[in-house]
Amino acid sequence: MGIDGGGTNSRATLCDEMGHVYALAKAGPVNQNSVSIQKVEAEFQLLMQNLRQQAPEHFQQVSYVFAGVAGTGKEEARLRVHEILEDLRPLNASIEVKHDGYNALYAGTLGEPGVVQISGTGSLTFGMNSQGNTARAGGWGYLIGDEGSGYALGRDALSAMAKEQDGWGEPTSLSDYILNQFEVKNPHDIIPHIYNQSHPRQHIANLSRYVMDAAINHDTVAQNIIQKAAHDLSEQIRAVVTKLFDKHQKVPVVLTGGVFTRADLFTPYINQTFDQYNINIDLIEPKLTPLGGAVIAAFRASDMQVNSGFVNQFIQTTRDGLE
Amino acid sequence: MGIDGGGTNSRATLCDEMGHVYALAKAGPVNQNSVSIQKVEAEFQLLMQNLRQQAPEHFQQVSYVFAGVAGTGKEEARLRVHEILEDLRPLNASIEVKHDGYNALYAGTLGEPGVVQISGTGSLTFGMNSQGNTARAGGWGYLIGDEGSGYALGRDALSAMAKEQDGWGEPTSLSDYILNQFEVKNPHDIIPHIYNQSHPRQHIANLSRYVMDAAINHDTVAQNIIQKAAHDLSEQIRAVVTKLFDKHQKVPVVLTGGVFTRADLFTPYINQTFDQYNINIDLIEPKLTPLGGAVIAAFRASDMQVNSGFVNQFIQTTRDGLE
Repeated sequence: MGIDGGGTNSRATLCDEMGHVYALAKAGPVNQNSVSIQKVEAEFQLLMQNLRQQAPEHFQQVSYVFAGVAGTGKEEARLRVHEILEDLRPLNASIEVKHDGYNALYAGTLGEPGVVQISGTGSLTFGMNSQGNTARAGGWGYLIGDEGSGYALGRDALSAMAKEQDGWGEPTSLSDYILNQFEVKNPHDIIPHIYNQSHPRQHIANLSRYVMDAAINHDTVAQNIIQKAAHDLSEQIRAVVTKLFDKHQKVPVVLTGGVFTRADLFTPYINQTFDQYNINIDLIEPKLTPLGGAVIAAFRASDMQVNSGFVNQFIQTTRDGLE
Repeated sequence: MGIDGGGTNSRATLCDEMGHVYALAKAGPVNQNSVSIQKVEAEFQLLMQNLRQQAPEHFQQVSYVFAGVAGTGKEEARLRVHEILEDLRPLNASIEVKHDGYNALYAGTLGEPGVVQISGTGSLTFGMNSQGNTARAGGWGYLIGDEGSGYALGRDALSAMAKEQDGWGEPTSLSDYILNQFEVKNPHDIIPHIYNQSHPRQHIANLSRYVMDAAINHDTVAQNIIQKAAHDLSEQIRAVVTKLFDKHQKVPVVLTGGVFTRADLFTPYINQTFDQYNINIDLIEPKLTPLGGAVIAAFRASDMQVNSGFVNQFIQTTRDGLE
């Protein structure tokens, strides 16, 4: 059984090493930093009940539960999830709880060591080497860090608009994109739209798509914003790679999250930076969803190999399900 | 009569052209962007009652009221304040309402044309030339702009700490300053302290003093943060100067706000930048408080010259009052 526990919603699945999916369940957020532990427990109950109802026999046969859960960077938080799952698990199943970076990493490396760069609204780098040592960078949130995230791209777009308006920035089509988005004519009229939001972080991150669109349409300011983000991403990845891997090892680096729906805008810069540092990386897109990564982790923890057809089979059977 | 109406508190004074102060009053916030118009009206009533009680005869003799009020960038907002003051003013007094940038400018130029750079928690540049034309830059708030503000300095300090911790930033004493401030041992423990604040903007801006302390103590990272802020300030000032003044005019530039309590850290960079652009500016510290600037504006609007001893007299008589 694999569980991908997030801050917005959670997913769980029962699956065999061929990639046959017997049950697939979805529930709400289980991040202890944002919801109560009662809520976390209720959502895990929902996931388990749902899986059990869909496939009662397979549920009882589960030998290993891997739960990759957001907000469990600290031991205490992991133990709380572990206790909750003890009461809910299939009778003979072992349980492993780790943070959700493992799901994202294994979704790309299929259980092998490597580094994952997550760039959605926020940004985080996580890596694991063959000795099982781990390291991270980022994850500081939008007021401190989140370099190379959707938020950083959106914030830089707003700043570029403000500088153009004030007369000390280069002209940029980003201003028009943003004015259209908020349906206003004057850049200053953006101000209440941004500050009166209860979640300005998300609204600013949503502007990142305009940076990508404008960059593709040869807007120099947007291209510079992309290049700066790619530089910050490279530095974060490099920090984790050098902590965990030897100089001449080839390191798989998984790029995941909303920003990398346009990975092609970033990868040339990132590759160029690592060439300069003479570090050998292999940028890859994830083959599976994070839930698939959690299943891989479960098999890995129970010393089982997944079948060579696993990825295709898993994708095919989950595509028709809840994903 | 001069009124300095702010977002946190407001002040008003009755004063003659020699700088003799007959009454001095203090009240709460009158910025319509943050408090209700009923509250604004109540605070202006408080100011006026207070002045009238302190000096009933002088109050009736007032010929001109200048109110420089925050949050009155738009005509509608200015008219609302004007209507409120119509009902409260001394019988024969004319009223002029403008935004509070005029107070800050005149506090330095004593009524002459020039530019003022305000860098407190946020940042704003405002200028006026001899034809009375005005221009501004900045004032976009912490999520869009505020370059060169206390907020920007504090944010860059947090970012420097995060990068050092993650292994992609230079070592910096800023981390120790920040850890001490929040009384924690691990940089990651800062995160809840920042995000659980109801006013994170102010708390981040408060960290700016550590950037200044560290820069004075030869911390390279802090010095780079100061230099970047000085660059951004220079560009904002330049944008306003070039909109309003001829190439070879010498332009007084007033530096005011909390960031410039250490103006000496910024002025060398700013002067250097303007030398490069071959623009002639004269950086000055304000001689008066913003309330003094409002009084200057009142005399200016009523075509009266202030006495050569005005500044010293005003400072001396307000020092013993509410300021």
